[in-house]
Amino acid sequence: MTSLLLSGEAHSRLAGALSAWPELTPHIVADAGDIPAASIAYLTADLFRAKRVMPIAEMLAAGSGPRWAHSVTAGLDHPPFQVLQAGGVRVTRSDAQAPAIADYVLGHVLSRLVEIDRVRAGQQAGAWQRIPFREVGDTRWLLVGFGAIGRQIAQRLRPFGAHITAATRSGTSDPLADACVTLADIPAVLPVTDVIVLACPVDDHNRHMVGPAFLALTKSNSILVNIGRGALVDTDALIAALDGGRLGHAILDVFETEPLPQASPLWAHPGVTATPHCAGAGSGVLARNDRLFLENLRRYLSGEPLMNEASSTGR
Amino acid sequence: MTSLLLSGEAHSRLAGALSAWPELTPHIVADAGDIPAASIAYLTADLFRAKRVMPIAEMLAAGSGPRWAHSVTAGLDHPPFQVLQAGGVRVTRSDAQAPAIADYVLGHVLSRLVEIDRVRAGQQAGAWQRIPFREVGDTRWLLVGFGAIGRQIAQRLRPFGAHITAATRSGTSDPLADACVTLADIPAVLPVTDVIVLACPVDDHNRHMVGPAFLALTKSNSILVNIGRGALVDTDALIAALDGGRLGHAILDVFETEPLPQASPLWAHPGVTATPHCAGAGSGVLARNDRLFLENLRRYLSGEPLMNEASSTGR
Repeated sequence: MTSLLLSGEAHSRLAGALSAWPELTPHIVADAGDIPAASIAYLTADLFRAKRVMPIAEMLAAGSGPRWAHSVTAGLDHPPFQVLQAGGVRVTRSDAQAPAIADYVLGHVLSRLVEIDRVRAGQQAGAWQRIPFREVGDTRWLLVGFGAIGRQIAQRLRPFGAHITAATRSGTSDPLADACVTLADIPAVLPVTDVIVLACPVDDHNRHMVGPAFLALTKSNSILVNIGRGALVDTDALIAALDGGRLGHAILDVFETEPLPQASPLWAHPGVTATPHCAGAGSGVLARNDRLFLENLRRYLSGEPLMNEASSTGR
Repeated sequence: MTSLLLSGEAHSRLAGALSAWPELTPHIVADAGDIPAASIAYLTADLFRAKRVMPIAEMLAAGSGPRWAHSVTAGLDHPPFQVLQAGGVRVTRSDAQAPAIADYVLGHVLSRLVEIDRVRAGQQAGAWQRIPFREVGDTRWLLVGFGAIGRQIAQRLRPFGAHITAATRSGTSDPLADACVTLADIPAVLPVTDVIVLACPVDDHNRHMVGPAFLALTKSNSILVNIGRGALVDTDALIAALDGGRLGHAILDVFETEPLPQASPLWAHPGVTATPHCAGAGSGVLARNDRLFLENLRRYLSGEPLMNEASSTGR
């Protein structure tokens, strides 16, 4: 018998599908109290919110034999993942939020390009006055990171005719991008870039990558989007760049400190669109997460390789 | 010798290119006064704004021999076109604004789907509260009209995974749409449609097509976009539908009366985004218009068939 831990909500969605595996015993994780022993866990957003993921990780890490945790997060930078990996537990992660995040990026950037603020002001003033706008096809985008999220953005952008540069560690060419460069090439690309999207995890090398030197090279009307991690951006340098006219607008879903402190000047800055880490809150994410977990469960139980498995050193 | 009429601005952009045809004599149309005799006219937006198109049309219609007018408008429902066509003048029109209009439609609809108003209100309130949103891939679109504009919209939508129904007079199938229906099928499609885009010209049959019967069938959270012609929509019925919760939001670039009268309730309605007939005001339109005119000029002078030529009865 193999035991699976999951939330009550996940159980109610998946009970029918799970009955296909009689060798599997599902256990629901209660909101409080001890974690039942199990060798598999489905780490859904509700368990993260209820702070049940760390005790589940500790239970799994203390076990023996084959163990596996599937997380609905894209990044594995939360502390429980270090516990899991140190304990020899296999970890898989999700790319189910990538289409939602790509929709968020396109929706917010396009709203800027069609001059949503000027449209609103013109309507409020009752002004019948032509509002010219920059076509998407006249813009050049730099996607920093070209994993599931960067690629979903590029797929949506292509028919608009935008020019797409993908910046990755390797710089490997990819048919979804017009140009592929390494991270070291970014300074050369920034002066001709209209939209910069940070779609990469943070590590020791790219912390505060968007700092004074980076922002000294950006176009004055360019748009910066951060849906990666807050620590990629030096907030003070960003505000100085916006105030100094070295950047047109910032669309931020992640922050150096989350929740964003009430005292942060980002809340009220006219050059900032700030959202509470919800670029992945799209209507299709839950169903895509469940499908991915069930496919990985099938693979795990039949001994096939898992999708999106993290190496034992992290990503 | 063949004479070409064009605006001063168009002449300054095109003089170099026109010098390729020594048999062609360009004449600049002044802001006032008589129109020089010519057999070709390039009817650009500045000439429409300066109200010089009707006298040009009258000059051409009074002439004899081969005559041709190229207009930067997509529709041919302005009075000068009746004069031109009654006078036996060949008329070509433009699809250069189609990419701009498609960008406008995607930009404004996506800004609604990512909940731009809730994002703004949340930020103003300093609220760290998740804002869920509908993914584009979870929406069904009805494009009424599937000419250059409808097709440019469909091309941009496809990678998002939205379901696209194209409604045309013929209902001819098209690989860019998931379903193709006739105008008579629209009532059956409306109850499952999230985004309705009017991208067709107006004629005697479709005037006020969006009226009480149409709006009784729409989803309560659906979005209506009109970038066709104002007369397609019964404004009073639209406002009643918005007030009655039978429609979520309307994005309107064209109106029954333009400029939109100051007394119109559309200006201040919270369910309306109103723009001053500028969906075609994209940054790439001028260059695409000039390229299309020059290509048609080459064809005209060498006796080849023209692009986008209207039949003698209108479109």
